[in-house]
Amino acid sequence: MPKADRSAKTAGKSGAVKPDKGLPMLRSIKGGKAAPAKANGGKLPAGRPNAAKPMGKSPQPKPAPAVADDVPVIALNLDPAKLSPAMAAYFRKCQEKLGFIPNVLAAYAFDMAKLESFVAMYNDLMLGESGLSKLEREMIAVAVSSQNRCYYCLSAHGAAVRQYSGNPLLGEHLVMNYRVARLSKRQRGMLDFAVKLTASPWSVEEGDRERLRRAGFTDRDIWDISAVVGFFNMSNRVASATDMRPNSAYHGQTR
Amino acid sequence: MPKADRSAKTAGKSGAVKPDKGLPMLRSIKGGKAAPAKANGGKLPAGRPNAAKPMGKSPQPKPAPAVADDVPVIALNLDPAKLSPAMAAYFRKCQEKLGFIPNVLAAYAFDMAKLESFVAMYNDLMLGESGLSKLEREMIAVAVSSQNRCYYCLSAHGAAVRQYSGNPLLGEHLVMNYRVARLSKRQRGMLDFAVKLTASPWSVEEGDRERLRRAGFTDRDIWDISAVVGFFNMSNRVASATDMRPNSAYHGQTR
Amino acid sequence: MPKADRSAKTAGKSGAVKPDKGLPMLRSIKGGKAAPAKANGGKLPAGRPNAAKPMGKSPQPKPAPAVADDVPVIALNLDPAKLSPAMAAYFRKCQEKLGFIPNVLAAYAFDMAKLESFVAMYNDLMLGESGLSKLEREMIAVAVSSQNRCYYCLSAHGAAVRQYSGNPLLGEHLVMNYRVARLSKRQRGMLDFAVKLTASPWSVEEGDRERLRRAGFTDRDIWDISAVVGFFNMSNRVASATDMRPNSAYHGQTR
Amino acid sequence: MPKADRSAKTAGKSGAVKPDKGLPMLRSIKGGKAAPAKANGGKLPAGRPNAAKPMGKSPQPKPAPAVADDVPVIALNLDPAKLSPAMAAYFRKCQEKLGFIPNVLAAYAFDMAKLESFVAMYNDLMLGESGLSKLEREMIAVAVSSQNRCYYCLSAHGAAVRQYSGNPLLGEHLVMNYRVARLSKRQRGMLDFAVKLTASPWSVEEGDRERLRRAGFTDRDIWDISAVVGFFNMSNRVASATDMRPNSAYHGQTR
Amino acid sequence: MPKADRSAKTAGKSGAVKPDKGLPMLRSIKGGKAAPAKANGGKLPAGRPNAAKPMGKSPQPKPAPAVADDVPVIALNLDPAKLSPAMAAYFRKCQEKLGFIPNVLAAYAFDMAKLESFVAMYNDLMLGESGLSKLEREMIAVAVSSQNRCYYCLSAHGAAVRQYSGNPLLGEHLVMNYRVARLSKRQRGMLDFAVKLTASPWSVEEGDRERLRRAGFTDRDIWDISAVVGFFNMSNRVASATDMRPNSAYHGQTR
Amino acid sequence: MPKADRSAKTAGKSGAVKPDKGLPMLRSIKGGKAAPAKANGGKLPAGRPNAAKPMGKSPQPKPAPAVADDVPVIALNLDPAKLSPAMAAYFRKCQEKLGFIPNVLAAYAFDMAKLESFVAMYNDLMLGESGLSKLEREMIAVAVSSQNRCYYCLSAHGAAVRQYSGNPLLGEHLVMNYRVARLSKRQRGMLDFAVKLTASPWSVEEGDRERLRRAGFTDRDIWDISAVVGFFNMSNRVASATDMRPNSAYHGQTR
Repeated sequence: MPKADRSAKTAGKSGAVKPDKGLPMLRSIKGGKAAPAKANGGKLPAGRPNAAKPMGKSPQPKPAPAVADDVPVIALNLDPAKLSPAMAAYFRKCQEKLGFIPNVLAAYAFDMAKLESFVAMYNDLMLGESGLSKLEREMIAVAVSSQNRCYYCLSAHGAAVRQYSGNPLLGEHLVMNYRVARLSKRQRGMLDFAVKLTASPWSVEEGDRERLRRAGFTDRDIWDISAVVGFFNMSNRVASATDMRPNSAYHGQTR
Repeated sequence: MPKADRSAKTAGKSGAVKPDKGLPMLRSIKGGKAAPAKANGGKLPAGRPNAAKPMGKSPQPKPAPAVADDVPVIALNLDPAKLSPAMAAYFRKCQEKLGFIPNVLAAYAFDMAKLESFVAMYNDLMLGESGLSKLEREMIAVAVSSQNRCYYCLSAHGAAVRQYSGNPLLGEHLVMNYRVARLSKRQRGMLDFAVKLTASPWSVEEGDRERLRRAGFTDRDIWDISAVVGFFNMSNRVASATDMRPNSAYHGQTR
Repeated sequence: MPKADRSAKTAGKSGAVKPDKGLPMLRSIKGGKAAPAKANGGKLPAGRPNAAKPMGKSPQPKPAPAVADDVPVIALNLDPAKLSPAMAAYFRKCQEKLGFIPNVLAAYAFDMAKLESFVAMYNDLMLGESGLSKLEREMIAVAVSSQNRCYYCLSAHGAAVRQYSGNPLLGEHLVMNYRVARLSKRQRGMLDFAVKLTASPWSVEEGDRERLRRAGFTDRDIWDISAVVGFFNMSNRVASATDMRPNSAYHGQTR
Repeated sequence: MPKADRSAKTAGKSGAVKPDKGLPMLRSIKGGKAAPAKANGGKLPAGRPNAAKPMGKSPQPKPAPAVADDVPVIALNLDPAKLSPAMAAYFRKCQEKLGFIPNVLAAYAFDMAKLESFVAMYNDLMLGESGLSKLEREMIAVAVSSQNRCYYCLSAHGAAVRQYSGNPLLGEHLVMNYRVARLSKRQRGMLDFAVKLTASPWSVEEGDRERLRRAGFTDRDIWDISAVVGFFNMSNRVASATDMRPNSAYHGQTR
Repeated sequence: MPKADRSAKTAGKSGAVKPDKGLPMLRSIKGGKAAPAKANGGKLPAGRPNAAKPMGKSPQPKPAPAVADDVPVIALNLDPAKLSPAMAAYFRKCQEKLGFIPNVLAAYAFDMAKLESFVAMYNDLMLGESGLSKLEREMIAVAVSSQNRCYYCLSAHGAAVRQYSGNPLLGEHLVMNYRVARLSKRQRGMLDFAVKLTASPWSVEEGDRERLRRAGFTDRDIWDISAVVGFFNMSNRVASATDMRPNSAYHGQTR
Repeated sequence: MPKADRSAKTAGKSGAVKPDKGLPMLRSIKGGKAAPAKANGGKLPAGRPNAAKPMGKSPQPKPAPAVADDVPVIALNLDPAKLSPAMAAYFRKCQEKLGFIPNVLAAYAFDMAKLESFVAMYNDLMLGESGLSKLEREMIAVAVSSQNRCYYCLSAHGAAVRQYSGNPLLGEHLVMNYRVARLSKRQRGMLDFAVKLTASPWSVEEGDRERLRRAGFTDRDIWDISAVVGFFNMSNRVASATDMRPNSAYHGQTR
């Protein structure tokens, strides 16, 4: 295909990425300011929740504070680029709202064109309008990432499932084996499709689409499911290929 | 093979299972009384740690308290048997020390012979003398259970790895993909062997044993690794076949 | 889990394993005294049945007597422990009834706790009360071991299927490909479940249990099928990991 | 992650995608105006090259002209959106330079945000600056798509490999089995990595990256290989999930 | 099995293989004299069809003429034998009708017994009487070879599907993923059976044969399908094991 | 390919298959007249060896005589053709020397062209001149058939390995898991190649051939190994597709 012009996306002056546009949506996802971990594997906060709690009066020595494993973020030596104004604003918003910059963004930040196209696609798919709820999209993300055994995505999106659903067990189910989750027919059909499309894409056929339609999905929903499945099959591979490490903050969220 | 006499193991009077014998070992594993969840999926305690915490001042509505998913413990309708005196004492000890009865014990409790032989083998393998540390045995348990995607064992033994190691990340690594854990050569070799023996037992040969020996393991250690791998390949299948559900308490431990 | 007390199981005085208790059951399994091979790969008996027979007056030179391949029994160098009184009695019974000590027992005999817990679980599962016949349990053992390509278990339990069923072909079918056996719906359903649970335990769900129920199995039967499947997934791996060799006597039995 | 503002990318006035920017690159890829097929599966041109030619004076009846199989382009019923000015200009450029609009663009054209983020990522990855030549990136595309047996991508990118390399056989090799291509060590290492990352992303580790470095790739090259592998693991799945059909024009190009 | 006498097959005088017998059939397959490539990887003809054509007035430099990759034909060093009279006549007929000797024949020509038994089986299966059309047999050949990713057979029999069907797309479908071809129920059932029998022969059972019967196949047809599947599972492996290279002429035929 | 003339092979008058030519070779394989089972599943002989023997004085009831499972020979309803004179003579020789007609011959006997081309290829490959011993060729047959879990071929060729080697255990090893056999480097390398070529033919490359050369095989030997692997990948599939049943006589031979 011909190459489209990308200049606008790196041109701060055109305001290609308006940092405050995603806010309401963001808030509903990740909540307020709380998660206290620093970006890029800062020291875990003193108050790290419940690592030692179940031990109570136990004579067992308190476990040493977990050492963050996300420095460096990836196993490739790539110098960070100067953030474009749009991306700088976006990173500030992440820091303010999440308390950290998701490491995947740090990983892509060696090249603004790559970072911006990743962010654009991610935000459209995961946060844009869709017949799928944001939780459902995160459920797909985790089921796909479990099939691919992707540490980064299971950590980050497992936390998102726990948060969106308010059901920590659901996150664990999807990380470990989505078949143990007690799902509606709709959501089970959605994940069956997602995992089949991940494991053997060549075998997906009209019958599979028909099953989704019978479970109540529109053709547009089927596109969205497929696109999210595709996106995480991409991200899982970039993460595995580069040994991308999730921010330590994810592990303790919404347990 | 001929059938050995099993009577002693169910005979309380012979003291087949002395409930207070495992105590020091138990204490060092699971610590004191703290984990507050009830056996068999009792209501989650009010103070369930940190489900909502990272949200801080977030406007997001507090997630509904997670509904325990371990009632019933298994998908088979089996009436519990009367506990033998030995097993009754053992269950009391579990309740006292862990705060709950591990659901796998509840699952086997429909038949004292099965419960006792399971407990005997489990305790010997996981808590008996060995050149492998208890943490190493739990690491094998989780790596095997991840290969087999066993919800019960990943939950229960993932928690054990977090506790024994005092490193919550290590538990996550082994649940998700043991290859991302930063292990010593010894432990990596141990888990490579465990996962190969799980995934393609027919392909294990002298070269694999030699690699373990070169990593510092004795022949007795190799037996122990193999036996733990075998045991969890058994337990994973019993759990998956019966839809066995882990106690909710595990999920929040040592995060 | 806490560690249960195991002392009784090694304590001869408590009669933990009563050697003569298994006899009637044993007799019905393995018959009388006949199988003449020695334990641990003794020379094959002169009268080894039918190696050359089908050749009749053939000019083909008589094959050299097969060299036993079960010395040593395993590829690990482990010193045998002193048998506990219970185990000594059990071994004597094996020798008397089978004509040899199954090599798996010799392999475990470096440690009495391990030997006793293995024997206890084995005997309960394979010889204890169950809605499954002993033949059916052996059929599961072979179908599982075929999936896992386990030389030891295919040899020993293939012989058991031949003996219990009085149908040498059934043993061959299950060793080679259980789908070629002409089975009742019940037994075919049982083996389909067993092989699925072996090959992809994560994929077993309520639908699989329902199929067993429709084939006439009770929930307790489903437990028993699952437990036998689990047990041989354990034993296959211990055998493969240690290169365990079956007693030569098995190969010629009930051909 | 927070949602970035995407407005600029759909805002024609900011010139987010300048249609004439990609031209030189495009020209070097796909050549002039020639390929005569119509976009979206128009009737194949009368002069469809060489379907019957090798038969020469053969008495065999001339094969019926091949019926295009790319109407509809996908198996989902999605109404096309109005093209944004930027995308309209881009489509015009495709039509002018390639003679058709690649069907993947038609498939995404139901939603401008999705189309634009796809185009932005595609163009950056496949046509942007990189230590990998454009041919190498197309080789990865085909090797990945062969592993995933993706009809759309094998057709479109197989044609691209044939064109870029001027070696029709290379395209066939990569479609059928990349191992039969006679490649440099560098390119073979690149494709081995690509296929491993596609087939078992969980198994990619530092050793794999080291092998690429020893074959002469920089860390940035490794990122680019991984990103192209990821991208086609995404596209393959979107294409398979929607039964996306390649433009008929691809099949006859550069044979 | 006893060894049958093979002498007649190499005895020219007995006319074991009458070279002019296959002519009418051959003509209907491969048409007249046209395909201009030389046997055994001769230089590609100047007029190699359409490599540069779609580019029209494109400024792109004409691709270098593809270098044939079929010298040597296989990666084993085997001296050609003297052709038996029957095989010499057969080779002359190939040259006359196809314009080249298929490389598989050249590969087998180191030994007349092997060449003749291969030719006899091939011709009976692919060109003899059958309820399957010749196109259907070639479709099976390609679907099997795609499952086995066999470069030789995909090239040669992909060309045959294109020629017999007069539908170049059908050839591409079967090479890439037979599931994307729009087939009748009969032909889809046939290829589903073929691919299942290729990928997991142990799992083929009466239900699979019943499905073929319901799709209209007779028992004799089922034999023929199975035999063609079997034959290409053989040929694919001989070709892969020896790195057999298809004649370059195949690639451009009937595009 | 053009169709060769097959007339000679079915023409009795040309003596295409001379029945007495294979005799010396046959004798050395299968020995004299002894194996008493009838062709096509005749009643098992009263004296069926050792089904009950190992039980000695056992109280166990004598097993019912095994019911032959090879009637019908295949699950397809195909009328036998009139044997050509050559094949009639060959069948007589089989009956005389083996005591039965191998069922695979009975299966092919519905069509003389198919039977003769199968016999010609089989005899050349398995009994013709080769750097591989006949035992080695049978070892390959069994290792391949084990990978494909083919009941017919495992039974028939497992018996052949037992007979040729005079080592019943070797037959069992190869049926169950060739890796447990204690082989020379040469033979192990040969079987590793055979099983790899069976399981993933696309992955066989020059390195694999080089390993065979280093193990002492010539290029011609490599062809022969590959051809035998190919042949049994064909036969396994024909047998599985048709539910072909081995003659009961095989099961008891050389145990």
